[in-house]
Amino acid sequence: MKIHIINIGDELLIGQVVNTNASWMAEELNKRNMTVTNITVVADEAEAIRSQLDRSMSEADTVLITGGLGPTKDDITKNVLCEYFDDTLVTHVPTLETVRSYFTRRGLEFTEINKSQALVPSRCTVLLNQVGTAPCMVFSHNKKTVISMPGVPFEMKWLMKEKILPLLEKHLGTEAIVHKTILTFGIGESFLADRIEQWENALPPHIHLAYLPEAGKVRLRLSAYGNDHAAILNEVDEQIKKLLPIIGDNVYGYDDDSIAIAIGRILKKRNATIGVAESCTGGLVANKLIEPSGASEYFMGGITAYDNRIKMQILNVPEDILEKYGAVSEQTAIMMAEGCRDILKVDYAIATTGISGPTGGTAEKPRGLVYIAIAAPDGASCQHYVFETTRQQHQERTANQAMFDLWKILNVQNTPTKK
Amino acid sequence: MKIHIINIGDELLIGQVVNTNASWMAEELNKRNMTVTNITVVADEAEAIRSQLDRSMSEADTVLITGGLGPTKDDITKNVLCEYFDDTLVTHVPTLETVRSYFTRRGLEFTEINKSQALVPSRCTVLLNQVGTAPCMVFSHNKKTVISMPGVPFEMKWLMKEKILPLLEKHLGTEAIVHKTILTFGIGESFLADRIEQWENALPPHIHLAYLPEAGKVRLRLSAYGNDHAAILNEVDEQIKKLLPIIGDNVYGYDDDSIAIAIGRILKKRNATIGVAESCTGGLVANKLIEPSGASEYFMGGITAYDNRIKMQILNVPEDILEKYGAVSEQTAIMMAEGCRDILKVDYAIATTGISGPTGGTAEKPRGLVYIAIAAPDGASCQHYVFETTRQQHQERTANQAMFDLWKILNVQNTPTKK
Repeated sequence: MKIHIINIGDELLIGQVVNTNASWMAEELNKRNMTVTNITVVADEAEAIRSQLDRSMSEADTVLITGGLGPTKDDITKNVLCEYFDDTLVTHVPTLETVRSYFTRRGLEFTEINKSQALVPSRCTVLLNQVGTAPCMVFSHNKKTVISMPGVPFEMKWLMKEKILPLLEKHLGTEAIVHKTILTFGIGESFLADRIEQWENALPPHIHLAYLPEAGKVRLRLSAYGNDHAAILNEVDEQIKKLLPIIGDNVYGYDDDSIAIAIGRILKKRNATIGVAESCTGGLVANKLIEPSGASEYFMGGITAYDNRIKMQILNVPEDILEKYGAVSEQTAIMMAEGCRDILKVDYAIATTGISGPTGGTAEKPRGLVYIAIAAPDGASCQHYVFETTRQQHQERTANQAMFDLWKILNVQNTPTKK
Repeated sequence: MKIHIINIGDELLIGQVVNTNASWMAEELNKRNMTVTNITVVADEAEAIRSQLDRSMSEADTVLITGGLGPTKDDITKNVLCEYFDDTLVTHVPTLETVRSYFTRRGLEFTEINKSQALVPSRCTVLLNQVGTAPCMVFSHNKKTVISMPGVPFEMKWLMKEKILPLLEKHLGTEAIVHKTILTFGIGESFLADRIEQWENALPPHIHLAYLPEAGKVRLRLSAYGNDHAAILNEVDEQIKKLLPIIGDNVYGYDDDSIAIAIGRILKKRNATIGVAESCTGGLVANKLIEPSGASEYFMGGITAYDNRIKMQILNVPEDILEKYGAVSEQTAIMMAEGCRDILKVDYAIATTGISGPTGGTAEKPRGLVYIAIAAPDGASCQHYVFETTRQQHQERTANQAMFDLWKILNVQNTPTKK
């Protein structure tokens, strides 16, 4: 099944909104062996929508459209589709009732503008949207399927999961696809490529490799195509077994894993707890640690010590350390981590202190410099890095690096076993 | 100038990477009065790239391409472009030198795979990439311009800012565009539409309005088109003056403002400080507060009290309060905020405690429930909300709401003046 995604919205074309809908949809479709061959963003403009519809109807079997279904005047998708399929709008009673009850439940007034949400082209099939007010419409035309859904991510996701994906699965082709992603940290893309060159060259032609670099991580995605799902899954697993002895030290997980999940697994197994003491990352390491549901089993809490006064007062960093070495130093980072471990009574503590910029750098301590310390039951250690990037990206890189540094210390054997 | 953006990469089509490049590029182009009419994602596949090139070359004046320029085997963009323009690859000596020095500076080996980065089609113009190893290539063909750049966001942004945008500005058309975005919080899209209906209907035809809802916020974007930049800018300002008396209570800023920046402005003016005590948001409110550079002037720090032990031990929440009312309660939220204000010796403190889920909800205290307390010099107050959404989105909504609740308390006059 060849799928085109069309995302309609001026806000996407002027860059005010990032198109997270397309990537979420593509990922969900892919997991179900449905191939997205094109994602196109067009304006809230009749001619642009019609022209893309023409193209997608000729190149794909299924066209998924998001956006332009709101109650406001800038939303025109429904009217354009109605005209495109030479139809007229009629009231869809179940939608009218859903919209009415949606407003009643919330104690909100049911206005005329909201009533118009229940108008749909007469020949489309409506998939009832139970989490919002815009209808989801399915059109069948020349053996092609066109589905129009709201662009609000929460509603789009609910409709995809509950209604659209089950519908599409019925029409599935037979080719099997297997994706497996190997998550690495701490080795650059070209060095990784060099190190695994022999292995990569020996991959059979129906298994493809892609490199996906991002903020200190490189994800290696293996995609295998064939007729027998179990057979290609097994082939991919065999390839990973050959790969691990080459880059195992840098592999922290697979697929939807994250370093937070990998850390959580180890801490839970050891019945150990963790806390954080953050300066430049201001809460971001803590927030990354609580990403997995159930993090409360091992994550106790943290101190964001942005001001030096808090470093001294809450984390007990001695004033003379701050004066002699500065807030951004190995000594301060170590004292923060050890202070945090003592005060929060945890087994492990991460501390970060650095210069995220854009201001605050000096010749001796440049913008981007950061110290990351880990206090563990058997002592504390510290690493420093220079990430020359934007303020937000510096926080992100530092938080990722801190998580990876902790993971390395926790993962003493250093060779992960295949899940 | 009509621009098409083509983002090349399998990783975008299977949803492993969100296309933030497109939105960043669109935003930068738009600021400079350059109109993006289409954004298309295609696979790392010769036929898909060629077919999209055909289309974009016929519909746009300028085509900006990202991705597929890495040193690894899955990257084919350069070869496809070379064939498309009927050219041959030659070594570009300045690129070779830049790549060599890039590796030498970092003390890294200069491998064969990296040398191939300096090969470019003989008739293209190379814009020297000084922050990476992939060349940026400009092709001129039938009065159209095609520019191919790397997909690594950091390199793409550097090349756009330093080389490509200045180049494109030379070829600019004369039509002026003005965008102005009014940032609102705490009122739903359809209610906002109802409230401002009269004002919206009276807008002149060359001024468009768009609603951009997101996690509790609705951004209203006014776009005006005309020949005289100063005149349409003035018209937009006049429209905003008429709008403010209608929805001023919910307007926290304009354009690239954020609630964090708005809060920072007020705190700096009052010479006041702030701290946070977070349970369910686990550091996210702190991290939002430090978004503006210079936040250290007013943000002192925070306590992430994920475990009840930390709530008692560090924030001095009495054990009997936790036992009687539970961790997720108005009483606990207020004690956390007041405890934080006392302990960190700050003027204002925000506290959050809630159930982000997916587990942990009960009939009485459902998943999604959250209490947000603000302690101020004249006392503490608390609001509760139910955000029925995913774990991550619950943290995001809660942190945004907490920032807005604080902003409302700080902004006592409640009618913002135009910047």
